[in-house]
Amino acid sequence: MDRRSFLKTSALGGGAAAAATLAAPAYAQGNRTLTMVTTWPRGLAGVWDSVERVANNITAATDGQITVEAKAAGELVGALESFDAVVSGQADMYHGADYYWVGQHPAWAFFTAVPFGMTVPELMTWYYGQDGMALHHELGEVFGVKAFIAGQTGAQGGGWYRNEVKSADDFNGMKFRMPGLGGEALSKLGASVQVLPGGEIYQALSTGALDATEWIGPWSDEKLGLQEVCDFYYPAGFHEPGAALSVGTNLEVFNSLTPAQQKTVELACADAHQANYAQFIANNGPALARLKQGGTQVKEFTPDVWDAFGKASVELLQGYTSDDLFAKIHTSAMDSMKSSSGWLSVSDSFYATQRDRVLAAM
Amino acid sequence: MDRRSFLKTSALGGGAAAAATLAAPAYAQGNRTLTMVTTWPRGLAGVWDSVERVANNITAATDGQITVEAKAAGELVGALESFDAVVSGQADMYHGADYYWVGQHPAWAFFTAVPFGMTVPELMTWYYGQDGMALHHELGEVFGVKAFIAGQTGAQGGGWYRNEVKSADDFNGMKFRMPGLGGEALSKLGASVQVLPGGEIYQALSTGALDATEWIGPWSDEKLGLQEVCDFYYPAGFHEPGAALSVGTNLEVFNSLTPAQQKTVELACADAHQANYAQFIANNGPALARLKQGGTQVKEFTPDVWDAFGKASVELLQGYTSDDLFAKIHTSAMDSMKSSSGWLSVSDSFYATQRDRVLAAM
Repeated sequence: MDRRSFLKTSALGGGAAAAATLAAPAYAQGNRTLTMVTTWPRGLAGVWDSVERVANNITAATDGQITVEAKAAGELVGALESFDAVVSGQADMYHGADYYWVGQHPAWAFFTAVPFGMTVPELMTWYYGQDGMALHHELGEVFGVKAFIAGQTGAQGGGWYRNEVKSADDFNGMKFRMPGLGGEALSKLGASVQVLPGGEIYQALSTGALDATEWIGPWSDEKLGLQEVCDFYYPAGFHEPGAALSVGTNLEVFNSLTPAQQKTVELACADAHQANYAQFIANNGPALARLKQGGTQVKEFTPDVWDAFGKASVELLQGYTSDDLFAKIHTSAMDSMKSSSGWLSVSDSFYATQRDRVLAAM
Repeated sequence: MDRRSFLKTSALGGGAAAAATLAAPAYAQGNRTLTMVTTWPRGLAGVWDSVERVANNITAATDGQITVEAKAAGELVGALESFDAVVSGQADMYHGADYYWVGQHPAWAFFTAVPFGMTVPELMTWYYGQDGMALHHELGEVFGVKAFIAGQTGAQGGGWYRNEVKSADDFNGMKFRMPGLGGEALSKLGASVQVLPGGEIYQALSTGALDATEWIGPWSDEKLGLQEVCDFYYPAGFHEPGAALSVGTNLEVFNSLTPAQQKTVELACADAHQANYAQFIANNGPALARLKQGGTQVKEFTPDVWDAFGKASVELLQGYTSDDLFAKIHTSAMDSMKSSSGWLSVSDSFYATQRDRVLAAM
């Protein structure tokens, strides 16, 4: 990736955005329909629910002033063209995972997930209680987009394996399906990283074209039937310890909304982040129990595997810090994570471990 | 407490609420001011912020159709009279901790916290992803209140102790400040449980009138100066593993709002729950670090203490299950907690522990 292009884009885009902010807002009158392109197939469990929740709540809370018309991937533009469609004004909004736009700027990854990054409570703390949301907007201004996180799958599982993983060496030569920065980190361990769409994973595992894969979590993975082609499942993974989804609106379109409509979009996105997280956890618990009952062997990686994941992830993120905006967001996120974890690890986590131990013995 | 009175209230109230639901809604025209009584002193850090956040967002998102006028405790009615004020129509809304109303019905406790109950991610799952919100509304209908959770302190700390706690026996005879169901559970361990307002705790500890106390968390506790009168702090506690705050609206008032206004109230409450949680965690991390640096000895209770906490808590909740609505909510909450934890403990918690270990060693 060309670091200089980020800086150049940043300087140009920042100026344009500042000018747009100074212009007097011209509120559009009457009821409006906003077109929302998405990076998802229509009906994708959990993910599409968050699309509908945001859209329906915006319409309901604005009393019909705004109708959001959601398009599945491919209906107006392809999944990965959603960002460009919003920047160019071809569409008004997108619903997607912001790490799909790392080719535009690598810092978009922080608003979905980065390897060895934040859990969902930590992300909430950074985003809603510290600088996270403001930095999301600062990054968006470079491109003329106003984005809010608006969905959440929770921690993505460590994945499915045809053979048990006994040490970090086992990743050497492993044919692994993992997209994004997680895949880049995994390749540092010697894995042969591949990117396949969801619909092709089952077949690749059953023929041995793949040795392992990650997808989302037990609920979604069970629907793909991965338990039929892999014996081993690792619930804890390093690559997406909480994966937020976002709604981005063309900045000119966003600025043309009334302040009340803007606030409604913000609230609808915040609600969807929390509710979608709830939906995934509510479904992951029972799905994991079913998978165990069906014979899947549920394992955890050994400490040496985590050491290798951590080293690769930290090096990978460090490699992007020559970009100033990336470095600023990276420092903010890592400082926040360390501070949050300093409290959560000794309060919530310690409590939950003891509680579960005591209740199980009763 | 008289169990039969709950059932009687329930039957009567349920009928009245059903009738109210059938009546055609008469939407009030024009801009309105709704009076919100609260159980808090004005400006109480974190807690009052969630009052203002909800109030301001309702006004902003309804474009001024609704102004929420928040009253501190004592300005219109006393803190613990807030519920009655809303039920009677003297006030339109309350912002408070629903477990203050356990004298009305013990199941209100589930919508703040119960001992040995849910962490915040587990509460979110139950409330937004399963039956929690619907059960909150079912309980509210008994009294003519529509309540939504709308604030969150996160896990409350295990508390401050003048002497180190080495076993469950140490609680025998301990003069401990803890209100609510947590205090009831602690008295089963032989503690002499007292309830003092925040402003009197420091003095009581410094004179030995108290041996120990809980308050909220490091951020709030530090403001009371508890580190000056106790050497030992236990971050993990059993009594409120995540304390939600709620906004309850008189049901007739709520039904007189337009559907768009009702949805806005719901979204503003959901947003405040998430954002307030973020605010508390964002402040607890640095506060805990400061306390350690200042010489506070940070400890965790031993397994036998947790065994005793668990036994007392489970017995306490079981004692209320002769009330049908309590039993229904209790079963729903406990089933949900067990299922969520089945996933979160092996994904998020395992991940965070390994991540923190690896990063600390780098």
